[in-house]
Amino acid sequence: MSDITRIDTNARMSRAVITNGFVYLSGLTADDTSQDIKGQTAQILQKIEHYLAQAGVDKTRLVSAQIWLKDIEKDFAGMNDVWDAWVPQGHAPARATGESKLASPNLLVEIIAIARAV
Amino acid sequence: MSDITRIDTNARMSRAVITNGFVYLSGLTADDTSQDIKGQTAQILQKIEHYLAQAGVDKTRLVSAQIWLKDIEKDFAGMNDVWDAWVPQGHAPARATGESKLASPNLLVEIIAIARAV
Amino acid sequence: MSDITRIDTNARMSRAVITNGFVYLSGLTADDTSQDIKGQTAQILQKIEHYLAQAGVDKTRLVSAQIWLKDIEKDFAGMNDVWDAWVPQGHAPARATGESKLASPNLLVEIIAIARAV
Repeated sequence: MSDITRIDTNARMSRAVITNGFVYLSGLTADDTSQDIKGQTAQILQKIEHYLAQAGVDKTRLVSAQIWLKDIEKDFAGMNDVWDAWVPQGHAPARATGESKLASPNLLVEIIAIARAV
Repeated sequence: MSDITRIDTNARMSRAVITNGFVYLSGLTADDTSQDIKGQTAQILQKIEHYLAQAGVDKTRLVSAQIWLKDIEKDFAGMNDVWDAWVPQGHAPARATGESKLASPNLLVEIIAIARAV
Repeated sequence: MSDITRIDTNARMSRAVITNGFVYLSGLTADDTSQDIKGQTAQILQKIEHYLAQAGVDKTRLVSAQIWLKDIEKDFAGMNDVWDAWVPQGHAPARATGESKLASPNLLVEIIAIARAV
């Protein structure tokens, strides 16, 4: 039996990897890229909740998050509005935000999260 | 009792998260952004020491660091001068450095570090 | 005796840090930067295998990878061709890819990987 559990694995990546007490999520992006920064951020946060649930935890167990914005000057505030309202009080992860162009021009934000497994 | 300890937590992030044998720091930036790359790097390294101390460890326990520079062509050398002098001999972390615009135009560098807890 | 093992450590970084059940690799880049994205990616993946072997594991133990491309629009597809063929079936890590200028203008790609130690 393996000591590494992988969720939604294809030839390129797994959406989540659970091992040694941590849950590593892949960089998550929005499916509906017609939405603005708030909509895309909300979609991603919902995906984070989804994959954390598959790993048996929830957002109170977040340890770390990296947030990559396509245009940090334009979208930092909008992303934060949605993020701040979503983070459970007293359980905010260590976080870093930088600007990075993403895999498709319509993607405005990508979030990479790590959580504590149970 | 929780198995996750968070330091300086607000609605957005924690400055440090200690869990499962690791200390995750948030992306740290300089407070005095009038300083050049060497000054900003030095401020950040001092903050890393501060938060590691709060987590009960020191810089000899660093495992990993990501360094994001606003202008890597201009500031890579200056950041390295300060970084190399600061890293304790024989204890250098795994490191990666890339270019990324940061949350405010005056920020020249941000460092994201992970250390081994005791 | 230390609970942290560092491989190829110099004043700036270690190429690998093994501790607490994980292997953290530094951001790895190609040595022959005259090669195109496929060649540079292949060189990096070989280096990852090399350092994982030094840590006593192999690419089936990869947990997480961040891939930074100098020009994501131009080189995302070429990097993926090499990456997808290299990842062992059923063992793909959590992955995120963004654009970032790297330490030298000839570097087209840098990969930061984390693996599960034995």
